[in-house]
Amino acid sequence: MPATAKRRRVGIAVVGLGGAVATTAAAGVEFLRRGSNRLDGLPLAHAAVPGLARYEDLVFEGWDLNGQSLAAACAEHRVLNDSQLAETAEALGAVRPRPGVASEAFCRRISGSNIRSVPGHRAAVAAIVDDLRDMRVAHGLDGIVMVNLASTERTPDAESAALRSMDAFERGLDADDPAIGPAMLYARAAIEAGVPYGNFTPSVAADAPALVELSRRRGVPVAGKDGKTGQTMMKTVIAPALRARALHVDGWFSTNILGNRDGEALRDRDSLASKLGTKGSVLDSILGYPVEDHIVDIRYYRPRGDDKEAWDNIDVTGFLGHRMQIKVNFLCKDSVLAAPLVLEIARLLDLAAQRGEGGPQEQLSIFFKAPMTVNGHAPEHAFHAQERMLTEWLGAGAAE
Amino acid sequence: MPATAKRRRVGIAVVGLGGAVATTAAAGVEFLRRGSNRLDGLPLAHAAVPGLARYEDLVFEGWDLNGQSLAAACAEHRVLNDSQLAETAEALGAVRPRPGVASEAFCRRISGSNIRSVPGHRAAVAAIVDDLRDMRVAHGLDGIVMVNLASTERTPDAESAALRSMDAFERGLDADDPAIGPAMLYARAAIEAGVPYGNFTPSVAADAPALVELSRRRGVPVAGKDGKTGQTMMKTVIAPALRARALHVDGWFSTNILGNRDGEALRDRDSLASKLGTKGSVLDSILGYPVEDHIVDIRYYRPRGDDKEAWDNIDVTGFLGHRMQIKVNFLCKDSVLAAPLVLEIARLLDLAAQRGEGGPQEQLSIFFKAPMTVNGHAPEHAFHAQERMLTEWLGAGAAE
Amino acid sequence: MPATAKRRRVGIAVVGLGGAVATTAAAGVEFLRRGSNRLDGLPLAHAAVPGLARYEDLVFEGWDLNGQSLAAACAEHRVLNDSQLAETAEALGAVRPRPGVASEAFCRRISGSNIRSVPGHRAAVAAIVDDLRDMRVAHGLDGIVMVNLASTERTPDAESAALRSMDAFERGLDADDPAIGPAMLYARAAIEAGVPYGNFTPSVAADAPALVELSRRRGVPVAGKDGKTGQTMMKTVIAPALRARALHVDGWFSTNILGNRDGEALRDRDSLASKLGTKGSVLDSILGYPVEDHIVDIRYYRPRGDDKEAWDNIDVTGFLGHRMQIKVNFLCKDSVLAAPLVLEIARLLDLAAQRGEGGPQEQLSIFFKAPMTVNGHAPEHAFHAQERMLTEWLGAGAAE
Amino acid sequence: MPATAKRRRVGIAVVGLGGAVATTAAAGVEFLRRGSNRLDGLPLAHAAVPGLARYEDLVFEGWDLNGQSLAAACAEHRVLNDSQLAETAEALGAVRPRPGVASEAFCRRISGSNIRSVPGHRAAVAAIVDDLRDMRVAHGLDGIVMVNLASTERTPDAESAALRSMDAFERGLDADDPAIGPAMLYARAAIEAGVPYGNFTPSVAADAPALVELSRRRGVPVAGKDGKTGQTMMKTVIAPALRARALHVDGWFSTNILGNRDGEALRDRDSLASKLGTKGSVLDSILGYPVEDHIVDIRYYRPRGDDKEAWDNIDVTGFLGHRMQIKVNFLCKDSVLAAPLVLEIARLLDLAAQRGEGGPQEQLSIFFKAPMTVNGHAPEHAFHAQERMLTEWLGAGAAE
Repeated sequence: MPATAKRRRVGIAVVGLGGAVATTAAAGVEFLRRGSNRLDGLPLAHAAVPGLARYEDLVFEGWDLNGQSLAAACAEHRVLNDSQLAETAEALGAVRPRPGVASEAFCRRISGSNIRSVPGHRAAVAAIVDDLRDMRVAHGLDGIVMVNLASTERTPDAESAALRSMDAFERGLDADDPAIGPAMLYARAAIEAGVPYGNFTPSVAADAPALVELSRRRGVPVAGKDGKTGQTMMKTVIAPALRARALHVDGWFSTNILGNRDGEALRDRDSLASKLGTKGSVLDSILGYPVEDHIVDIRYYRPRGDDKEAWDNIDVTGFLGHRMQIKVNFLCKDSVLAAPLVLEIARLLDLAAQRGEGGPQEQLSIFFKAPMTVNGHAPEHAFHAQERMLTEWLGAGAAE
Repeated sequence: MPATAKRRRVGIAVVGLGGAVATTAAAGVEFLRRGSNRLDGLPLAHAAVPGLARYEDLVFEGWDLNGQSLAAACAEHRVLNDSQLAETAEALGAVRPRPGVASEAFCRRISGSNIRSVPGHRAAVAAIVDDLRDMRVAHGLDGIVMVNLASTERTPDAESAALRSMDAFERGLDADDPAIGPAMLYARAAIEAGVPYGNFTPSVAADAPALVELSRRRGVPVAGKDGKTGQTMMKTVIAPALRARALHVDGWFSTNILGNRDGEALRDRDSLASKLGTKGSVLDSILGYPVEDHIVDIRYYRPRGDDKEAWDNIDVTGFLGHRMQIKVNFLCKDSVLAAPLVLEIARLLDLAAQRGEGGPQEQLSIFFKAPMTVNGHAPEHAFHAQERMLTEWLGAGAAE
Repeated sequence: MPATAKRRRVGIAVVGLGGAVATTAAAGVEFLRRGSNRLDGLPLAHAAVPGLARYEDLVFEGWDLNGQSLAAACAEHRVLNDSQLAETAEALGAVRPRPGVASEAFCRRISGSNIRSVPGHRAAVAAIVDDLRDMRVAHGLDGIVMVNLASTERTPDAESAALRSMDAFERGLDADDPAIGPAMLYARAAIEAGVPYGNFTPSVAADAPALVELSRRRGVPVAGKDGKTGQTMMKTVIAPALRARALHVDGWFSTNILGNRDGEALRDRDSLASKLGTKGSVLDSILGYPVEDHIVDIRYYRPRGDDKEAWDNIDVTGFLGHRMQIKVNFLCKDSVLAAPLVLEIARLLDLAAQRGEGGPQEQLSIFFKAPMTVNGHAPEHAFHAQERMLTEWLGAGAAE
Repeated sequence: MPATAKRRRVGIAVVGLGGAVATTAAAGVEFLRRGSNRLDGLPLAHAAVPGLARYEDLVFEGWDLNGQSLAAACAEHRVLNDSQLAETAEALGAVRPRPGVASEAFCRRISGSNIRSVPGHRAAVAAIVDDLRDMRVAHGLDGIVMVNLASTERTPDAESAALRSMDAFERGLDADDPAIGPAMLYARAAIEAGVPYGNFTPSVAADAPALVELSRRRGVPVAGKDGKTGQTMMKTVIAPALRARALHVDGWFSTNILGNRDGEALRDRDSLASKLGTKGSVLDSILGYPVEDHIVDIRYYRPRGDDKEAWDNIDVTGFLGHRMQIKVNFLCKDSVLAAPLVLEIARLLDLAAQRGEGGPQEQLSIFFKAPMTVNGHAPEHAFHAQERMLTEWLGAGAAE
């Protein structure tokens, strides 16, 4: 199939469509549609791979608990500048999120005015499947993928029986088991509908063992989780080089300040991060030994808004026990880094579906902090090794 | 050949044996010989490759314009701490550099009391060849390599005819052509003696076209040039990731403060660095486009001594033209980073010689700022790609 | 005189009216005139001192070699954001700089299309005096002050006889002595016209001994020189504390990156800065001993535009010889820091004139890198001591 | 009294004599006694004030729950280098802390083997008073002061009745009231014995209203609390300048990493710090308005040992609402900064006693994070204003 073959119109069904990342991504597609050739931040802008949808052919759809238009949401997030807001106002003003589907089991916990309340888990899954079907028809889509960009959910009890197997999960759906959270219901619906699913958040979703199994059986591509944008990306870039130079990492102190809407949600992840730091983490996996003094702090700090600042201090020991320090200060913009990755994840999941590949898409590891792997083995975290994995996968398909 | 085969005793003939890097390396070998298992900073400490000499079997030899013992030199450089100096004093005290060989054509330019003045270029080469032969016999060596760690020389006129071909070079030797500098005489002698040659300095030596040709004809491995230790190493680690994320580099400002003996020599490189910055540089090669605002400053700043501090500021543009900054502050120790690389370069050049590989050893690119390449093509600068090149070469040999 | 007395309409005759600092200052006054109560950055916004003109009553006038309107200039400098440019466009569009007055002795050196060429020094002074008289009448001013914001001029030969005394200077004017630069002609004209003069640039002007003498004789207030905005301000804030804690400064490395129009002019100051660093500098004066490793670098780096980044590294020795480091990274905006200081300098010079104080106004030291002093003694550089000087002077006048 | 008058032998009775700060201070005095003229870090080294004891005449005494010699303790803290340890080993080896006095009311809480357990509060106070009397006689002291350098205690209930007045406190002593902590018992004993008391820790001690009252009645000088060494010192240096330039502080994020023994104790202060941040803090007091986004983090991070690293990010708004950032990175050594301040506090408290000044010594504010004030008014936090206060007090006494 030549690269100039019929263009694919691909929908992105976003959970959390009104958020900063989704609206920034939607605005970006609108700019490209209007002829802009600003391709900064789009890793695969120059990849000529048969079957890969064009950015301009991506259609934003999805759900949000806030029903305002994407234009209104975008203005609130203050990521785009004034002239960018003005230029995209009309197009984004025409897009409104569908009501978020909520099983009544969770209704008390969820706040927002744009809710489609359904009696239980089964009904929620059915409603989401219906929505996906409707999107496909309404926009005349050739393909559709779901991407989770909603606020992070609390980690469910790891011992929860309902998540362990396909059968147990189905019984959990019938019983409205509270261990099955909203993100899992959306993921379950996507897989049922044959829609590839990508998880840009740390919430448990398609990575629950039950859903991994289902995605394999149904041959639906899934990928995740937790987008790798700023500080963690740099960590997975620098750590492999320290290992290659045999500089021993005595400690790695990472602190973040961040003032956007996700700020408060992230504070909860602080404890999670600390917990992960003591167990097998990104860093330990790359270095091959445990870094006991690996500390990750995230602080909600309003003056920054969507801008995010990361400060890392790395203590290393070199030849003859002499000690050195590396400090990295990253003044970044959260949504500006995340939005283009979302576009690539969507395009690549659509491509995987065309190639008939189901289950976890390990070759997308470069986009995630905690990549899903094909056989449940430990993920590759080193950035350059992940890049190579993706490049080879892209090339393999192209050569077919 | 099993890894437990007969051990090889390998000499390192260092040009500049009394310098901070050489004495630190020699002290490190002494510690390993005394049973220390501190292997920090040694990239190949755990590589089980047949034929690779052990660190403990490396013998330091060489030349210096200052004739004091390595113990005295080491104490002056203030790289090791007091207890390390005390522990290595006896062993290093027993090593004294041979007089630096100087063709009278350069005698006026060279300062130092430990000089073996010879009437011209030919005599200089012959004297160095004699020294190499004597080292081999005196220490009962199985192998010997030469490594250049001397102060940086000025760049010769690029148009100089004498450097262009083997024949022209030989005529230049006869004529005591001033375009042929000391580093080239040492390199020429090493190749003549069949001794592999590594250049850890920015001086022109085995990379002169005439000597590249000679090293190929004679089948002698050569590698260089300019050790990649701190700031440039980080640059070649981070830049590939920026390219992979399509973050456009608008500018990269690198400044260094450094107070050791090489400080003043480096000031001269400042102009060189600026010049390189405007032409094809490490950065441009990795990114694939010219970074016009790539500035490299080096400043002699005494409070630091051998400690070196690098501060980099990177301005990048991401999605939709939004700008971000990355700042890297590296508080490093020059000789501590460099010394273990010298040990690895020596071991690998000796291995290449055993494998019968002559000419530029491109697989050693990871150790150099300006790697020599096999066919004169542009070098690979990306750190991880260089690492893979070396790993594959090591494995290929192991599999034979 | 009560604070509510008749309001004073005060003109600021700016040399370099189209520059980034002047246009930012003019825009700020326009915002205040339109009712904005944003007083950030204005040190004396809340000072209730009789005679001090209101910001809204300042009138921008002056000269520039580029004749475009302040609105056009302001848009070029990219200091204000889009909505600020839009809001001030009309008011600033109505102001156009007068042609810069140039003695033909300098004409070859000066580039720009908005020039009033006059046959010699005397004619230049006369033309400027005429302009000042015209401004006063044209705008119905109660007071007028001149502020130099033009590009930095080269330092004249310190031994130049013409600058040493009033008489010599007058003879120099007659002879079109090239040692008398444009900044001195403007300053000379201001003093002749009884107009207070402030010098925000490093150029030699009213600080030439001849003009200091003249300003005292004529009773005209003068102040300068070289606005203290970012890095040097921080230096004069931190150094006094290091002295108070007896932390010995072993070295202070200051580097700057800056991309605005003054960038290239500043490169010339690099050599000046270095020179000052080796002699009695701001730092040495505060600490009471010479800091031999005090290095100041300024680098033109386009990605920043008017944003300026300073990075300071301070090496200190504390108790028992133990060493510590302080690093300060200031991401500032040059014109945003400078513009409000210009407004204060103008208001204070006008106040000094009302109080009948002539000659150097030492109490304005807090605004300058190299403050002029009353009796030629060494200036006070410590920021807090300068603040106290100003506060006391303001209070003294208020109490009268 | 001339400055050359009879020298005063002054004892420092340290609570926590085996800690890093106390042993560093004791070692420093030993160096000065042995003729060293290294006076770095000693703010008043050159003050010629009548009555001020010489550093060499300070005698270290005190209590610690660990009974090992100061030499052994000093070696453990790893503040001094090897040669400094060797040189002071003999002198410090001769000093052993007295057993810490513990009222049985606290015995369960206190760990350590060097304890003098007494039946209750009254007995504890009496034992401490006895110890002070014994010190005076044993060393032939002309004066003696007590300094608290013990680990930070938890903050008592602010509403505790026992701390509110002298009488209530005395009843609390009789009743072994648990609101009266160890630090208060030591402070109470010092005041009873007429021994000036300084509190270098954040624990509540002489600042309890009851003890403030007592110190005034008895005419005993007291000062505190919480030594101002690194990050907070810099905060009180920089904030006044931001106010002077009218740069509005939108947020101030301060994070610390620290790996010494006090590390874990400090983690508890984290909550305290946060609490203070929301109320009237150092910063708010200096700036004159509340900084809502003022965050202070302290993290225990072992790779640093006694070295402490502070990283501050300051967000400010300047003219026309434009925003800037200042980042300060302080690589300091906790005990090296603290020890000389302890020596000055001791000398100054002894001087205050000679001058007959009782109650809170506000002129020592420059040494403390939360200075005690004479009339309970809000303390002055600006560093330079504190310096002036001390200088004037010193001069006033000198002039008498």
